[in-house]
Amino acid sequence: MKKLLIIAFILFNLTSLTAQMAALQYTDAQNLTLIGKALPDGPSYHRLDTASFPAIPPTVKNLLTHSAGLAVSFSTNSTQIGVKWCTSPRAPGNNMTAIAYEGMDLYIKRNGQWQYAGVARPRTNECNEFMVLENMAPGDKECLLYLPLYDETLSLQIGVEPEANLIAKPNPFQKNILLYGSSIVHGASASRPGLAYPARLSRETGYNVINLGVSGNARMEPAVAEMIATMQMDAFILDCVPNSSPEQVTERTANLVKTIRAQHPEVPIIAIQSIVREGGNFNRSIAERVAAQNANFLREISQLQQTDRHLYLITAEGLLGDDHEGTTDGTHPNDLGFDRMLQKIKPAMQDILEKYSGFE
Amino acid sequence: MKKLLIIAFILFNLTSLTAQMAALQYTDAQNLTLIGKALPDGPSYHRLDTASFPAIPPTVKNLLTHSAGLAVSFSTNSTQIGVKWCTSPRAPGNNMTAIAYEGMDLYIKRNGQWQYAGVARPRTNECNEFMVLENMAPGDKECLLYLPLYDETLSLQIGVEPEANLIAKPNPFQKNILLYGSSIVHGASASRPGLAYPARLSRETGYNVINLGVSGNARMEPAVAEMIATMQMDAFILDCVPNSSPEQVTERTANLVKTIRAQHPEVPIIAIQSIVREGGNFNRSIAERVAAQNANFLREISQLQQTDRHLYLITAEGLLGDDHEGTTDGTHPNDLGFDRMLQKIKPAMQDILEKYSGFE
Repeated sequence: MKKLLIIAFILFNLTSLTAQMAALQYTDAQNLTLIGKALPDGPSYHRLDTASFPAIPPTVKNLLTHSAGLAVSFSTNSTQIGVKWCTSPRAPGNNMTAIAYEGMDLYIKRNGQWQYAGVARPRTNECNEFMVLENMAPGDKECLLYLPLYDETLSLQIGVEPEANLIAKPNPFQKNILLYGSSIVHGASASRPGLAYPARLSRETGYNVINLGVSGNARMEPAVAEMIATMQMDAFILDCVPNSSPEQVTERTANLVKTIRAQHPEVPIIAIQSIVREGGNFNRSIAERVAAQNANFLREISQLQQTDRHLYLITAEGLLGDDHEGTTDGTHPNDLGFDRMLQKIKPAMQDILEKYSGFE
Repeated sequence: MKKLLIIAFILFNLTSLTAQMAALQYTDAQNLTLIGKALPDGPSYHRLDTASFPAIPPTVKNLLTHSAGLAVSFSTNSTQIGVKWCTSPRAPGNNMTAIAYEGMDLYIKRNGQWQYAGVARPRTNECNEFMVLENMAPGDKECLLYLPLYDETLSLQIGVEPEANLIAKPNPFQKNILLYGSSIVHGASASRPGLAYPARLSRETGYNVINLGVSGNARMEPAVAEMIATMQMDAFILDCVPNSSPEQVTERTANLVKTIRAQHPEVPIIAIQSIVREGGNFNRSIAERVAAQNANFLREISQLQQTDRHLYLITAEGLLGDDHEGTTDGTHPNDLGFDRMLQKIKPAMQDILEKYSGFE
């Protein structure tokens, strides 16, 4: 009898939530403002049109279809916000939450700051709907809805009360900064999309930091360097040491920097060493590999700096703090690790950029 | 051809890893030292023998079968450590990683500090095997292997090189502190088991903090209060506001404290208000509920403190910091939120406990 009552209670709640969500009026997010794309063309929720770059490796192409770093900018005076969205049928890896992998999170501006407001929880690996927020005060809210980090977003609709408005807002961030890197840039293991470190950098600096993280595949291939060089950016950040072997770091770093520099003679390029891998605390071969990657990167960047006065380096020291608790799996920062990275990278980046026009 | 080569490479690596793991010699963890149980009886990896407490709610019983807070204490001079383990077939919720939910993590003592060493990644939701660490330096390592937070662990074997030793070590932590609470104590949304806040408290203070988190069900029922009172502890921490309605807080707090106090006339009892729910930043009904829970708890504890001089309160202020980035989903602290909780709770707890015999 008690079980039956519990089931009835759950069904009642589900039915009532579904009814409430059905009462919202949905708008395709393509009619609002999508921010965070590296290049404007191609399918809406891809980071760029991969078909335009036939020479880049297929795995990189596939990763660029993930909606990492994309967000929808809008305002509404609704007191409820719901979402319906579909992603590819992939399931999360063991070091990520489903919310980060294929869910979303919403921020609302309050007193000039972007503040966490709600999440969209995926219940399945494909199509989902979720009431992100209800019981809000009346009045206009300026919103940013972050898309899934590690999945391809196939469709997205945003629902508000039928009598409420839903207005496309401009990109709230100024000056475009491309952040090219590994899974760490891509967002593993942030606990939700808005906590990936490029997204946090944007909200905390006001700059438009674009996520070009390609999990496990930031290997500075010449074709990728050419692609990056076509992007009209005000600055480039290169956090691509972790995926390149020590030999690849030596072979490819100069080419990447020079290829970008050829198209952007005066823009700042900020190179970042790899975070220390906590997996190397006791596994000596991991520790040796990271040390070699970072030594080779330092050598290459130092060499380039002799003739490139707009090239900067942020070193690995202290990027994850000193208690060894900043990763999910020895490789990927958790939200604590990302917070510590931010505490070093944000002021270092700001010190560099404020020398440049428009960044002051 | 390239695809075939990749498949061959993956198969080779899997085969070689499997061969390497098969070469290890496995010992049932029941032959080593299991720490973290609230009471010693019952199935090895349950937190207590739920059959001994027929009156506690079935959902609480079920949650107490999860291995949250349990860890295996051992030492080995092996340079590799592998694990084979089985859990129930449940799959992770959307706000947790599979590593936290049904995987494990290993710490090794270095210079007197417990340091992250490796993870056991679940590849399936039932039985798994994983090489946690390899390429270690020779010599003795003192190890703590944390069990899955949100699943029932059915079996566990630890593998070391055939010529290596594997020795049961005593519990490295002194003085027993029961930490009763909600999903937050249980470990959602730590990114791996060792980052749940009771586990971090243990490692950072040296006290044996026992995880009695019962996700969504820390409601201070009289039968649960009776069960807790039977436990021979040196201190009790009550972080059970989040799951109790404001009315339940008023009705049940005094009974919980008095039931424990009747059996433990002199032990410190530390009550903690609920963290602010970031889900209430814009959802007014969530914000109102938490405010009412905390106001009622404060009133009850203050009233009790008039006659109980071993009862203490830690308030909610600042438990998650002030940037609203410390949760995965508006309810559950991520590793950043847990770190901030620790920064307040750890010194407050130490200030209280050092007045008591044996804690100095």
